Amino acid sequence: MKQSQLFTKTQKNAPKDEVSLNAQLLIRAGFVDKLSAGIYTLLPLGLRVIKKIENIIREEINSIGGQEIFMPSLHPKENWEITNRWKSLDEDMYKTKDSSDKEFVLAPTHEEVIIPLAKKFINSYKDLPFSAYQFQNKFRKEKRAKSGILRGREFIMKDLYSFHLTEEDLNDYYEKVDKAYLRIFERAGIKEKTYKTFASGGTFSKYSHEYQTLTQAGEDIIYICEKCHTAVNKEIIADVENKCPECGEKLSKTEKAVEVGNIFKNKDKYTLPFKVTAKNENSEDILLLTGCYGIGLQRLMGTIVEVFNDERGIIWPETVAPFKVHLISLSQNEQAQEIYDNLVKSGIEVLYDDREISAGEKFADSDLIGIPYRIVISKKSLENGGVEIKKRNEKESRIIKIEDIAKEIK
Amino acid sequence: MKQSQLFTKTQKNAPKDEVSLNAQLLIRAGFVDKLSAGIYTLLPLGLRVIKKIENIIREEINSIGGQEIFMPSLHPKENWEITNRWKSLDEDMYKTKDSSDKEFVLAPTHEEVIIPLAKKFINSYKDLPFSAYQFQNKFRKEKRAKSGILRGREFIMKDLYSFHLTEEDLNDYYEKVDKAYLRIFERAGIKEKTYKTFASGGTFSKYSHEYQTLTQAGEDIIYICEKCHTAVNKEIIADVENKCPECGEKLSKTEKAVEVGNIFKNKDKYTLPFKVTAKNENSEDILLLTGCYGIGLQRLMGTIVEVFNDERGIIWPETVAPFKVHLISLSQNEQAQEIYDNLVKSGIEVLYDDREISAGEKFADSDLIGIPYRIVISKKSLENGGVEIKKRNEKESRIIKIEDIAKEIK
Repeated sequence: MKQSQLFTKTQKNAPKDEVSLNAQLLIRAGFVDKLSAGIYTLLPLGLRVIKKIENIIREEINSIGGQEIFMPSLHPKENWEITNRWKSLDEDMYKTKDSSDKEFVLAPTHEEVIIPLAKKFINSYKDLPFSAYQFQNKFRKEKRAKSGILRGREFIMKDLYSFHLTEEDLNDYYEKVDKAYLRIFERAGIKEKTYKTFASGGTFSKYSHEYQTLTQAGEDIIYICEKCHTAVNKEIIADVENKCPECGEKLSKTEKAVEVGNIFKNKDKYTLPFKVTAKNENSEDILLLTGCYGIGLQRLMGTIVEVFNDERGIIWPETVAPFKVHLISLSQNEQAQEIYDNLVKSGIEVLYDDREISAGEKFADSDLIGIPYRIVISKKSLENGGVEIKKRNEKESRIIKIEDIAKEIK
Repeated sequence: MKQSQLFTKTQKNAPKDEVSLNAQLLIRAGFVDKLSAGIYTLLPLGLRVIKKIENIIREEINSIGGQEIFMPSLHPKENWEITNRWKSLDEDMYKTKDSSDKEFVLAPTHEEVIIPLAKKFINSYKDLPFSAYQFQNKFRKEKRAKSGILRGREFIMKDLYSFHLTEEDLNDYYEKVDKAYLRIFERAGIKEKTYKTFASGGTFSKYSHEYQTLTQAGEDIIYICEKCHTAVNKEIIADVENKCPECGEKLSKTEKAVEVGNIFKNKDKYTLPFKVTAKNENSEDILLLTGCYGIGLQRLMGTIVEVFNDERGIIWPETVAPFKVHLISLSQNEQAQEIYDNLVKSGIEVLYDDREISAGEKFADSDLIGIPYRIVISKKSLENGGVEIKKRNEKESRIIKIEDIAKEIK
């Protein structure tokens, strides 16, 4: 894409009320726009990142048999009365009414739709296990929306739900999701900083698990076990007597972290009120067990920004970067156009800065936006034999021949 | 995909309160599930169709320079007060409050966000024209939700907005969108039945245009001009003195139709209240002009179903079908598996009916679901030299060799 055609521009300053680093950088670089506290528009660059993240998640969830669906945001009150969450989550949920005064919830999560949906289609053990997921907006009345896109009042979530006849089967699937999540966070570039973390299992399970990524922007405190790269959420550290539930190691080191995903065994918490059963092999009606598994897309994007940045801007991992190459022409538009055309033909995503502004402004914008490879073509680079190439996280550029660019990038 | 793994099943009957043909067929075949009047879940088959439609639209809108973004659904009251639509659209909009009693609209359209967003980035004629679009849920308090997915209370819309310095430039872009829309409806298989229709331009333009597809399910009446394949919405037929505005032909033939898209010149209707100006070449501040252009995705999907069906079920056009091939094994699972693997390897989308049910049930399901090519492998077909192949809209099947399948389909 040509940068002269991109309708967004970089900004020197973020809005004054925006205190979080992730939102400051993302707004200044033109990835998101703030509409209201906790409510953001994804601009062209930001949507490209979200789509990259979405595709990584989709591939990994499809690989464990998840079937993609798309559930509504407007849920009738009745469904939420069945689980008693119409009242218990009242303070957290946006509610509305239609023209006949029928009440609706703006969904903060989708158990109240997926559980009765599953009931319609599951009759017997032959239909099990099954899992379905979606990428869909969630709405949450967050009282405190000061963490930029880490804690939105409206945000896209990947929510996966699984259905099982036995606890063993639920446990098996839970482990599969855990492995898929680790692959997702690895592909998103934050594996090293992300700890599978023991957290409260509620009244139904001993533990649930969160995936906590270390960053000062995090709102959670976790106790880290370096021995097995796991952690324990501070909320339950007393319950585990300050020991790692995995290896028994004493835990004392704490870190701030942000929860980029969670997996949860709901067991029969929701299938009981909705009476979702299936026949087992002996034709007995068995109450189904469920698991639910979430990843917030904007939160993952914001976490990546919190982890990968420097004083000049964002440093995107290649897998989620809006473009792979930032091509900068310093008054060499003819050759730059040729390089651009060739890269596009090779299937490489390029943002081509063809604007008529100073070199300094172009470099500052490039660092702020944070595309992995920067290629500069200038009179000087041509005299030196080609173009300057530099990775965003490198200090020094080097000269390569124009005909070697595609090879160098791939 | 193997049909035994698809969690949805076909149903003999649709819910009794579901009176529209499109929703009856789509529910029975397992494409959608009804949560509440006008509110539907897209099931795996239905989401596949919506994604096909979305991709067609995305390609065509990208080809005319549209930049994809994603705006929020929760809009602050203030934005809607600026355009006075907080009051004027009050009856049509879902509203809600956050924990500090701040009021929000659940967006039925997005002018109130895109217009101030554009204002932040557009300074001069050099930034123009530009257009941005999204695929995002819309929420509308439809009083009457009896037309299945043709008139949802919650639905995905492609909404495109364009910004211009001059009326000439707006007119040029409007024509480009018109051509893109015609390509979209052609690719979606409904070109023949779809008429570009003159409709009211409101107080700001002489006309707007709707794209009306002929079907008995339609809620609009249009007057057709066969001479130039255009039409006039009944609402303005008196204003045009029963004559085609294009060629002057007298119009008398009426048809029922559904509006699958519209294009509209808002001119300065929204830029005026938001004071969106840009400098022209003489450094004068000029009030910008805008156009807006919508296509409802579920409505387009439902229209296709209304147009293409018979007494046995849906007949999807290839371009939007959930799969290209429905492979049916009648107790020949070993060879069927091999055919399935080869088709998948060739990049052909196949639903493989590997279930242990009767041939009659498989054929009935196949006709109901409506995938373009049906391939049946049975003892009989093998004796006859291969597999039976039949298009969904053909009566007779014929035998082809197994090794010719991919060639035949492509």
